[in-house]
Amino acid sequence: MSVTDEVLANAERYAAAFALGDLRLPPAKRLAVVACMDARLDPYAVLGLREGDAHVIRNAGGAVTADARRSLAISQRLLGTVEIILIHHTDCGMLTFTDDAFKAGIQTETGIRPDWAAEAFSDLEEDVRQSIARIKGDPFIPHTDQVRGFVYEVETGRLREVKP
Amino acid sequence: MSVTDEVLANAERYAAAFALGDLRLPPAKRLAVVACMDARLDPYAVLGLREGDAHVIRNAGGAVTADARRSLAISQRLLGTVEIILIHHTDCGMLTFTDDAFKAGIQTETGIRPDWAAEAFSDLEEDVRQSIARIKGDPFIPHTDQVRGFVYEVETGRLREVKP
Repeated sequence: MSVTDEVLANAERYAAAFALGDLRLPPAKRLAVVACMDARLDPYAVLGLREGDAHVIRNAGGAVTADARRSLAISQRLLGTVEIILIHHTDCGMLTFTDDAFKAGIQTETGIRPDWAAEAFSDLEEDVRQSIARIKGDPFIPHTDQVRGFVYEVETGRLREVKP
Repeated sequence: MSVTDEVLANAERYAAAFALGDLRLPPAKRLAVVACMDARLDPYAVLGLREGDAHVIRNAGGAVTADARRSLAISQRLLGTVEIILIHHTDCGMLTFTDDAFKAGIQTETGIRPDWAAEAFSDLEEDVRQSIARIKGDPFIPHTDQVRGFVYEVETGRLREVKP
């Protein structure tokens, strides 16, 4: 049995106990979270979010890429969110390589060099500040006055704010 | 008090009860989930995932954008995942507009036309198939034989598989 089949059995149990069919499309807390895809970081558990509360945008690194900014523009313009929480974390995979080496390895193996930035970084707090700066510099995200950035400590479960 | 301050109080409670400091960086289930950012869809709850189990990648629509493919390439190449679950959902905001109208509206307001696709779609199941096709066509994602796509029903809590 694949892992996918295994978690699908969980999904059947979730549906059997489901009682949230009246939740509305716009996030109740008018909040969007941008976080790393890391398996150890569950933004619902950490932030005490429930279904219906907030948009959750995630990718490798919790990087504020063009796609994350697209998602934030849609979140704010069409669905009414106004606050943004960014979450990076300690022991992040993105700290373990460089864009150049990662892309050169892929080129060696496939013959093709990726046409994207891998978004690796070497300083966690600096990258959180970089992410905030990208949001504030984006012309399509209307609400950028309530953006705060954090580092989640996978060792302690603590969320530490990064000061600008 | 802002919503951010409110959820930060939750984060302090999470840290106080934290006992997961020994989880490893690579996802235990070797699984990556790509899902819509929608507030009503909590992939942990639906799939019965725990901290440490799976990478979770999310954006507006659960679209397999270049950024999602970047994240999947990192997930598989550096952190050992091999299975992929895609989740779109009913009543999605992406069904309520068109790229052209959304971007024209932004251009009218800001004077600048976004240089990205908004990734709106009109057929949910067709867009899930499109997402699978993008993964299978990506030269940088090594494991594409265990990719399955689903529609989450926000009305019933059920996860329905989209057949190829």
